[in-house]
Amino acid sequence: MVDFYLPWFIAFSCFCALLFAGYLSWKVLRQSRGTERMQEIGDAVKQGARAYLRKQFSVVAVFFGFFFLFFLWLSSRGYISIFVPFAFLSGGFLSALSGYIGMSIATSSGDRTAQMACSGLNSALRTAFSAGAVMSFTVVGLGILHVAGWYYFLDRYFSINPVTAGDDKTALITFILLCSAFGASFQALFARVGGGIFTKSADVGADLVGKIEAGIPEDDPRNAAVIADNVGDCVGDCAGMGADLYESYIGSIVAAMALATATGIGPAAIAAPMAIAGFGILACIIGMFFIRTKEKAGQEYLLRALRRGIFVSVILIAVFSYFIIRRLLGAAHTGIYFSVLSGLFCGVFLGISTEYFTSYKYGPTRWISASALTGPATVIISGLAVGMVSIALPVIIVALVIIASFFLSGGAGNINIGLYGIGMSAVGMLSTLGIVLASDAYGPVADNAGGNAEMSHLPTQVRQRTDALDALGNTTAAVGKGFAIGSAALTALVLIAAYRNNILLLGQNIDMEFMNPRLISGLFIGGMIPFLFCSLTLGSVGRAALKVVEEVRRQFKQIPGLMEGKAKADYARCVNIVTAAAQKEMIFPSLLAVITPVLVGLFIGLEAVVGLLVGALVSGFSLALFMANSGCAWDNAKKYIEAGNYGGKGSDAHKASVVGDTLGDPFKDTSGPSLNILIKLMSMISIILASFIAKNMFFK
Amino acid sequence: MVDFYLPWFIAFSCFCALLFAGYLSWKVLRQSRGTERMQEIGDAVKQGARAYLRKQFSVVAVFFGFFFLFFLWLSSRGYISIFVPFAFLSGGFLSALSGYIGMSIATSSGDRTAQMACSGLNSALRTAFSAGAVMSFTVVGLGILHVAGWYYFLDRYFSINPVTAGDDKTALITFILLCSAFGASFQALFARVGGGIFTKSADVGADLVGKIEAGIPEDDPRNAAVIADNVGDCVGDCAGMGADLYESYIGSIVAAMALATATGIGPAAIAAPMAIAGFGILACIIGMFFIRTKEKAGQEYLLRALRRGIFVSVILIAVFSYFIIRRLLGAAHTGIYFSVLSGLFCGVFLGISTEYFTSYKYGPTRWISASALTGPATVIISGLAVGMVSIALPVIIVALVIIASFFLSGGAGNINIGLYGIGMSAVGMLSTLGIVLASDAYGPVADNAGGNAEMSHLPTQVRQRTDALDALGNTTAAVGKGFAIGSAALTALVLIAAYRNNILLLGQNIDMEFMNPRLISGLFIGGMIPFLFCSLTLGSVGRAALKVVEEVRRQFKQIPGLMEGKAKADYARCVNIVTAAAQKEMIFPSLLAVITPVLVGLFIGLEAVVGLLVGALVSGFSLALFMANSGCAWDNAKKYIEAGNYGGKGSDAHKASVVGDTLGDPFKDTSGPSLNILIKLMSMISIILASFIAKNMFFK
Repeated sequence: MVDFYLPWFIAFSCFCALLFAGYLSWKVLRQSRGTERMQEIGDAVKQGARAYLRKQFSVVAVFFGFFFLFFLWLSSRGYISIFVPFAFLSGGFLSALSGYIGMSIATSSGDRTAQMACSGLNSALRTAFSAGAVMSFTVVGLGILHVAGWYYFLDRYFSINPVTAGDDKTALITFILLCSAFGASFQALFARVGGGIFTKSADVGADLVGKIEAGIPEDDPRNAAVIADNVGDCVGDCAGMGADLYESYIGSIVAAMALATATGIGPAAIAAPMAIAGFGILACIIGMFFIRTKEKAGQEYLLRALRRGIFVSVILIAVFSYFIIRRLLGAAHTGIYFSVLSGLFCGVFLGISTEYFTSYKYGPTRWISASALTGPATVIISGLAVGMVSIALPVIIVALVIIASFFLSGGAGNINIGLYGIGMSAVGMLSTLGIVLASDAYGPVADNAGGNAEMSHLPTQVRQRTDALDALGNTTAAVGKGFAIGSAALTALVLIAAYRNNILLLGQNIDMEFMNPRLISGLFIGGMIPFLFCSLTLGSVGRAALKVVEEVRRQFKQIPGLMEGKAKADYARCVNIVTAAAQKEMIFPSLLAVITPVLVGLFIGLEAVVGLLVGALVSGFSLALFMANSGCAWDNAKKYIEAGNYGGKGSDAHKASVVGDTLGDPFKDTSGPSLNILIKLMSMISIILASFIAKNMFFK
Repeated sequence: MVDFYLPWFIAFSCFCALLFAGYLSWKVLRQSRGTERMQEIGDAVKQGARAYLRKQFSVVAVFFGFFFLFFLWLSSRGYISIFVPFAFLSGGFLSALSGYIGMSIATSSGDRTAQMACSGLNSALRTAFSAGAVMSFTVVGLGILHVAGWYYFLDRYFSINPVTAGDDKTALITFILLCSAFGASFQALFARVGGGIFTKSADVGADLVGKIEAGIPEDDPRNAAVIADNVGDCVGDCAGMGADLYESYIGSIVAAMALATATGIGPAAIAAPMAIAGFGILACIIGMFFIRTKEKAGQEYLLRALRRGIFVSVILIAVFSYFIIRRLLGAAHTGIYFSVLSGLFCGVFLGISTEYFTSYKYGPTRWISASALTGPATVIISGLAVGMVSIALPVIIVALVIIASFFLSGGAGNINIGLYGIGMSAVGMLSTLGIVLASDAYGPVADNAGGNAEMSHLPTQVRQRTDALDALGNTTAAVGKGFAIGSAALTALVLIAAYRNNILLLGQNIDMEFMNPRLISGLFIGGMIPFLFCSLTLGSVGRAALKVVEEVRRQFKQIPGLMEGKAKADYARCVNIVTAAAQKEMIFPSLLAVITPVLVGLFIGLEAVVGLLVGALVSGFSLALFMANSGCAWDNAKKYIEAGNYGGKGSDAHKASVVGDTLGDPFKDTSGPSLNILIKLMSMISIILASFIAKNMFFK
């Protein structure tokens, strides 16, 4: 029995999230924007970022148009419902909107944070953190609005217009929801890949030609790539991250809903993920009020304040989700509560493990710093070693969560309930997204503020403060990435289970045994896809960065008086070059995700698609964690040296650590975080096109 | 019906292989060893290498002793046959012997090759290539002697002493053979990991402190690490490679034999892999006679001569294996011939693909060279991108070979025949090992000759010639690695199938469906293991190299007159340091391979072991190819710059490319090639301990 009050409760939580985001954004925007110079730079970054997003949306729109028409055609042929193309569009639109809003507040708060940093560290943190929270609560608010909106609309619609005989109403609804999640993921992949290529090629290019070649400081206004670099922080780390986490959030909810239909528990099981997520929002808002620091508090204290907020939210969810599950699903399914709980604590453990391997307070990152004494080669070797070993614990934790949430929810008796339990663990993990993402998203704001301070010639003290914020943000950002990747593994698994149920429903003669050679060859190909994807994105960054280097070199040579600071660099040209390169380079990797499952399905068979998805999940999960953690560890190893260890700034060890950081940039901000979208997107497109592929296979 | 002449035919091929190896070794050893100085250096390397191997064998003996006693205990409890501990020992012994012989001939031919290089490129190639062929034919000769010896002995033994009721004679025999292959793989993993850590930490350390820090040339006698570096080439690239390929070779044969019992074809199916391998040896010997070059021929011509030899062998095997299969298995199973054929050509295609991505004649490696212009970071990024994309084609080829060899052999009707077909494709691929490995193994000999020439102050022309040989060897070595990894993927798959059959025979209640959560969590853990393994081995190289750097620095400081060339460096101390480090560091990664399946089996279940093995195979295969190819591409990108491009030797681009090469060293010679042993070893120990684990699980 679905609770009568449930829709109102969900609507309320969604309303609170958006209201809270609005309140925070009002708080941020009433701050002073600082001097004219600061405003000017802030505007330049804002314009560049908007120009980039407009350009990107216009490219993405072409692909959305194509898929919209393709889905229309499929629905006209009876493969899928007529709502699918529209759900697809709405998902893409809201994912893009999440990114856009997140980016807008970030670009509007860079100069404000820099201004606040003039008066103190704590007030700067508050501004940056509030800006991050605007994004996070927009993401969760829009996410739940979207899922619940479609769900209750379709539920009402199909009550009035019954589905045709042979179709299952709830299965149909969750299928349409999955298609909207596909739209969100598809847009998010473009945003992550395109934004990631933009930000990292600008960053790498600017560093290579500025810091290393010309010997001028980071964010020096003579370097034509610095505005592109700052724009990149906004379009990659903010717009990309917002779109990414939007899709993670609704993806986990929708995946659990998709499996709910097979459990036999009834419509309450479909509503439960939304209820948990809705309560999570309220818990996160409450948690936010616990993040208070005394003025003049140290960095350590700030981090502890952040942790206290997250801790409060986690405890609230851990306690109250018990009552939600009991009320909605009844005493017979109390076990599902433990699934939610295991996911919730999985997130916490992933965070701790990530922090250990990537923060310079601990041994692994310090080892990388120490190995900088023998040059860049040993920095790279030790960084790769740290990244590779850092995945062991998270993978084992996720493996145990899979077992725990399957068996505790009652999977031994009913496999679908167990798989639903795995889905609910992903929902539990992401129920804290409101507050976790806020502490993730303020990093780019602080980074931007630092850039602004540098270019506005503010006192060095200001830059030091924003650097401190940035360093703190690095650790919390790595934790956020661990969340995104860990939840992606669980969500993808649930999606694969949904795919399996789907093809079993199609009545195909399917052999899901391990030793089916089609399945095995799918596995091999799937295991390779994440590597191929990373190769493409790494190569893109390398190529685009080269263009930036050439352009900045050209400007150094051809603009008279530039090096002496008498003439202005041509920032817009650099932005244009990177924009064009990112647009061009993002298309193939993004399409790879949707084309591969179709080709494998058509040419090797439906079982091969299962193999493909599992293979991509298994190697993609490990690879994503490895790249994200290596990248972050290199970054912090450099920061540790800059803090005065092993020779400090300017020493040979520092130069070696910069090489590690440069390599780490595309690892942690382009290739790594895109992988979690990739593995889900592949599963979603497989589900959507399963019936089409089943009827059109070449090799049966 | 097993052919009456078959044992004699196999014995004959084995005799030919060993005779041919003896003949070639006589040819090499009668060459002049050059000047006294050259002999002195050659002896120093030889002594260092022998000392290292003695040390390593004594460490490995401890673990063999432990497992021997453990297997004895297991057999006394009735879990396994009493022959198992002895088969295990014999496998380890012969794998070690293969490595030892290969290394001995390599150390004995370094000075001789250097001497021959004084008179010309071609004669130096002949000496080096003959030395490589001694190793390759020793490996295949001993391999087939071992497998066939045990097989015919056990067959005869169990004919006289029938097995107890309920046991299957052929299943028992192949199980014992598998245990001997396990011994070989276990020893090979120690050899690869220990040797790999030795060679690369000496190499990296010598380069870091010599070339980069002190600015003295490679192999400069003032650098105390140079002898260790040369010793390393022998113990890692020769002893390690010999042991590795020995285990690949017998592993593929034994895996196919293990599945043969389940096909229902009868004992002929068990003998067929030996027959194909035996004929392969003869074909390789014939092929060797086609490798003739005119005196004064260019490098291109040499490569073509090598290719001609391989081509002849491939054609011979392709033609005659048809008759072997027809005769042994009868017309009904002609399809298995196509499995052999697909494996054979898979090897050829893997070679071509590897060459394209790693030779500087083609675009990818040249792109890495070009990216050296913007510093080490872009060298690393582009090298990683090339390595990651280079796996796409090989993986797709292997996936197609799996499908082809399964369905062509008749797997649609009988799954075990299809799996046997996959096993036969691995045998087909490795049937050319005699000649492929020869062209792989001469690289280290040439490398050694170069070191000898440098330290003996021979004319620079000599060093140029050995460098040319080394460059040629780089490409053929990469091809050899592609073979080892590709065949490992097929062999491991067959072993996993054998494991599955094994646990089904145990009568356990096993659910091999994909969505079994135990299986899934095994998959995740399995996917992580290769990363963890690489992290450990990379970290080992990093740590051991640091010790070398410190020692050489100490000698530069503390030995008066060393830098002026008046005093001698303390080579032995460096060798001792690296030896001790390698011994210490090799233990944990090697034990990881055997402990993980046991722990997973005991704590998560038998299905989880299947997941573990498949996960490790899928991510390990991709990772191994990626690391081997990246490493080789960096090496050749450096060589391309040294050949005078992008500024040539000594330029900034060259320095950047050295960083790539240094990172590539452990990639291609430590972590990458060990992975192929790892994935097989895990499968073997799982099979051997299946019955033990089934009875002692904690979580049923």
